[in-house]
Amino acid sequence: MGTRLKRKNKYGPAGRYAYQGLDRMIHEHARLSVLTSLITHSHGLTFSALRELCALTDGNLSRHLQVLEEAGLVSLFKSSDLHRPVTLCRVTARGRRRYMEYLAVLGRVISDTQCALRGEPAFRSALKSAAAS
Amino acid sequence: MGTRLKRKNKYGPAGRYAYQGLDRMIHEHARLSVLTSLITHSHGLTFSALRELCALTDGNLSRHLQVLEEAGLVSLFKSSDLHRPVTLCRVTARGRRRYMEYLAVLGRVISDTQCALRGEPAFRSALKSAAAS
Repeated sequence: MGTRLKRKNKYGPAGRYAYQGLDRMIHEHARLSVLTSLITHSHGLTFSALRELCALTDGNLSRHLQVLEEAGLVSLFKSSDLHRPVTLCRVTARGRRRYMEYLAVLGRVISDTQCALRGEPAFRSALKSAAAS
Repeated sequence: MGTRLKRKNKYGPAGRYAYQGLDRMIHEHARLSVLTSLITHSHGLTFSALRELCALTDGNLSRHLQVLEEAGLVSLFKSSDLHRPVTLCRVTARGRRRYMEYLAVLGRVISDTQCALRGEPAFRSALKSAAAS
């Protein structure tokens, strides 16, 4: 038991790399695509534009939008354009806040690997993208 | 159809936010924790140290290590320490390369949101973490 405790302390506190704040609702690949698209288009995107930008099928996008709407992270507005139904999708204030909290954890993942990967070209490229102004 | 094509072009190319390089093998929360722990400890970590750092159960960690080993991203070395079995886990060269490619995509997610979130304190905090030297 003493050995176990020593091991815990040797590498850092328990849960040091657990990234508990990595919100499962946002971390899912398709939902991360959808939310990033909506965050970067604050006036909203139509369903069809979102489907193209995220390279999702109708069914997949519908399912993820429903999950995000039920969680209060996006709002969906139904309308019609030349007699065709149109859905406008927007991120909510809550979705924006949760997304920012999620991004802060992604920032920690990147910073945690800095020392280990500093010399690697692909890592420098990742950092350059993240820090570009 | 003309309207659909116009919408595609208005917001960017199809798949602009699809993040196809967001490797599913690594993106899964527990595996991201495991690989980040191993990347930052290049000499390897014992099973028990990894379990504590990632706040995973024995069963969960075993399952994810098996998946990562089968994909060639980690190597597992069995030994014994004072007659107790000890497993040493290390990231492979392939795992390291795939992780770096994954990080480059995470960098793109962050950079894509820069303009939209530049003024938000939580976003500045994420960027600061990612770019800290």
